[in-house]
Amino acid sequence: MTHHYTPELATTLKQRRQTLGDRLTTPVLLWSGSAPARNFPANHHPFRASSHFLYFAGVPLQDAVIYLHQGQLTLFMEDATPADALWHGSSPTRSAIADRLGAAAHYPLAELRQVAQGAATIPVQNAATRQQQMQVLGRPLGEANALQGQDLALAEALVALKLVQDDGAIAALQKAANVTVKAHLAGMAQTRHAKTEAEVRAAMEMVIMASQMEPAYQSIVTTHGEVLHSQTYHHSLNPGDLLLVDVGAEHPLGWAADVTRTWPVSGQWSDSQRAIYEVVLAAHDACIARIQPGIEYRDIHLTAAKTITEGLVALGILKGDVATLMERSAHALFFPHGIGHLLGLDVHDMEDLGDLAGYAPGRKRSHDYGMQYLRLNRPLQTGMTVTIEPGFYQVPAILENSKNRDTFADCINWERLADFKDVRGIRIEDDVLVTETGCRVLTSALPTQADEVLQCLKS
Amino acid sequence: MTHHYTPELATTLKQRRQTLGDRLTTPVLLWSGSAPARNFPANHHPFRASSHFLYFAGVPLQDAVIYLHQGQLTLFMEDATPADALWHGSSPTRSAIADRLGAAAHYPLAELRQVAQGAATIPVQNAATRQQQMQVLGRPLGEANALQGQDLALAEALVALKLVQDDGAIAALQKAANVTVKAHLAGMAQTRHAKTEAEVRAAMEMVIMASQMEPAYQSIVTTHGEVLHSQTYHHSLNPGDLLLVDVGAEHPLGWAADVTRTWPVSGQWSDSQRAIYEVVLAAHDACIARIQPGIEYRDIHLTAAKTITEGLVALGILKGDVATLMERSAHALFFPHGIGHLLGLDVHDMEDLGDLAGYAPGRKRSHDYGMQYLRLNRPLQTGMTVTIEPGFYQVPAILENSKNRDTFADCINWERLADFKDVRGIRIEDDVLVTETGCRVLTSALPTQADEVLQCLKS
Repeated sequence: MTHHYTPELATTLKQRRQTLGDRLTTPVLLWSGSAPARNFPANHHPFRASSHFLYFAGVPLQDAVIYLHQGQLTLFMEDATPADALWHGSSPTRSAIADRLGAAAHYPLAELRQVAQGAATIPVQNAATRQQQMQVLGRPLGEANALQGQDLALAEALVALKLVQDDGAIAALQKAANVTVKAHLAGMAQTRHAKTEAEVRAAMEMVIMASQMEPAYQSIVTTHGEVLHSQTYHHSLNPGDLLLVDVGAEHPLGWAADVTRTWPVSGQWSDSQRAIYEVVLAAHDACIARIQPGIEYRDIHLTAAKTITEGLVALGILKGDVATLMERSAHALFFPHGIGHLLGLDVHDMEDLGDLAGYAPGRKRSHDYGMQYLRLNRPLQTGMTVTIEPGFYQVPAILENSKNRDTFADCINWERLADFKDVRGIRIEDDVLVTETGCRVLTSALPTQADEVLQCLKS
Repeated sequence: MTHHYTPELATTLKQRRQTLGDRLTTPVLLWSGSAPARNFPANHHPFRASSHFLYFAGVPLQDAVIYLHQGQLTLFMEDATPADALWHGSSPTRSAIADRLGAAAHYPLAELRQVAQGAATIPVQNAATRQQQMQVLGRPLGEANALQGQDLALAEALVALKLVQDDGAIAALQKAANVTVKAHLAGMAQTRHAKTEAEVRAAMEMVIMASQMEPAYQSIVTTHGEVLHSQTYHHSLNPGDLLLVDVGAEHPLGWAADVTRTWPVSGQWSDSQRAIYEVVLAAHDACIARIQPGIEYRDIHLTAAKTITEGLVALGILKGDVATLMERSAHALFFPHGIGHLLGLDVHDMEDLGDLAGYAPGRKRSHDYGMQYLRLNRPLQTGMTVTIEPGFYQVPAILENSKNRDTFADCINWERLADFKDVRGIRIEDDVLVTETGCRVLTSALPTQADEVLQCLKS
């Protein structure tokens, strides 16, 4: 992966380390992790380096550790063995990697204990590496979402840094967004030739792989849009179906895109599908129009909730006064998740830290019906990247729940709702960079208008 | 995944459980495992159930445990929660799954302790599940390749069962082989349109995904065939390059294919490339011609070594008497790995158990230069499935090694070898079922002849 080191990347990394050093006097040790075994030790899942490591080291070096102190980086890793050279080819020496990485010094892993005393860390996801972290530091490590002491202070410093994307990050996020747009266009074009969800997924991930990226998360490509995290692809495509497609590419250095479109398999919207699509699109557009530094992301969420409530009242699905319906969270019957989340090196950026990144200090996740899945609750700042992803779903687990049916008996016109039974789920999701004057939609090259989507299906 | 349960599968599974019960009186607990986290807990790698679980349960049920005793299966897993229904859709109840699985009874996981006493198990790869195994059994578990006591007895019984494929297994292996053939043909057809290795890989994995399968292992698609386990795809394709492509599909229920072809990017072999290709192909054909029940797999390996040695002597690359060269393992300078391995639910079947499956009782892995990477050393039996994969490589770590250059100074004509410098690596690999009268090549639909391969590149 060392062919990714460029002078620009080196400059970006140096700046990030300096900023961390300015914020935190404690020394820091970050592990990259290792690839977990799949069905046997030599057949492992693809390696994904820890995002906190990647932020400062730039490149996914496997089984490596960086020591950060006062703006300097020290690299700890093993040199490749002769057996490595046989099976994996020749690789640059640790010294050469350290050089390209701008490291002040470099040592084998056995030397880690020399710098472990008092160092802060973030536990990685890989269990084997986490054992190594505990051994080196000589103390137990819990989950990354429940840190204490110097580790919590490090996490808070990381959140402060990583909430605002620098130019290097924005360039990588834009590249992931561009490939994702291409993948969605390929999926749209493939739909009329495809017999199954799997064939559309395959056409889209082909674009991502051919672009030397990987999916940033398990693709959702489903005629059952009401299943929010559907990860099966075996359903056949039938003319009346909507296909909900949530697919994003990940840049080789880790930066994610996260995009959803929903389109009709037949190439034509039914009247009911188009009507709901327009409601979701109105919410999407209203949210994006409001984005600017200083606005509360929670208010963006409420903008979506309001637009959806108004739309469903206008269609006769919801009954009553918009303000009252919203107060009762009636919109959450059809829009049960939050309007989006932070986007960065992780598709839900820094979610390994729990709500530390998503929620401003002092704020806690609400248990309210309409707010429990809001992943981001902060005022927006210039340089933040977030998703905007309103949706409408008919989830049996919600709509057939007897408590919900009692509570909301006076809000829903069930007979009218039956007219929309060919709308299982619709979501429209884009990736947005907050700018000084408003925002820039990184994925704006992918159409959202109902008729433009149909054009893409024909191409 | 429960849509995969068919009456045929139920019959196959019942038979497997009965055979285990006949071999082993000890009760057995097998865990399916869980999906390891990628960069944060909710973003995990795709779930892959433990192969030993799959063999008896058929379908990859996540976080499930089966208890096998006297031919009966008892299923332990949780019913889906309301939150599961929201995010993952409605799923069959444990009772319905148990019914389709032919389980004698079913309980929640908390009841596992009731049957844990004295039960044998195989440690799974996933670290979190392995913790659960130890808690339930109340004893430490080491690695699956160093088992003792009742666990070793279970592993030996599993090896005895799984070495010979039943009709259900053969049908699934053939389906994986068929999709793999399609993927290779797509890769060949894509090559003349492709600028990078990544584009060929993408076209191949697209076929696998569109067929509702997954890659059985990380695809190798490389112009650097001398890197045996190359897993990068960023090199550009240039007219003089050979592309070495080792890609296999995995059936949704876990059965693997493992196929390699090597072809010229330009659509034409150079004379040197064709000459070496013919040597490797001769080895491939000679090995397959010798396969029959009772023959030692080690002798198949030696057949490949001999054919390659003869070929390289004929080309003037190796010097001297074939028998002497083989005795000195001179062939291993260019063919450093074994002729193949077991194939089954794992692409290296049962390799989690170390050499327990690959090596007949009493045999140990040799440290000899030419034999150290031989993964299978048993007499072949009707119903075994193995790969045959001879190769020729110019690995710098081997050929530039000063000890090797001294040891083999009199064996190699370096000047002549320089004529073949456009041959970095060639491998030809097929999947073979041992039959009563010889063998059936599961992947025979994919051409191996040098000219036939060129035809596929044009199609």
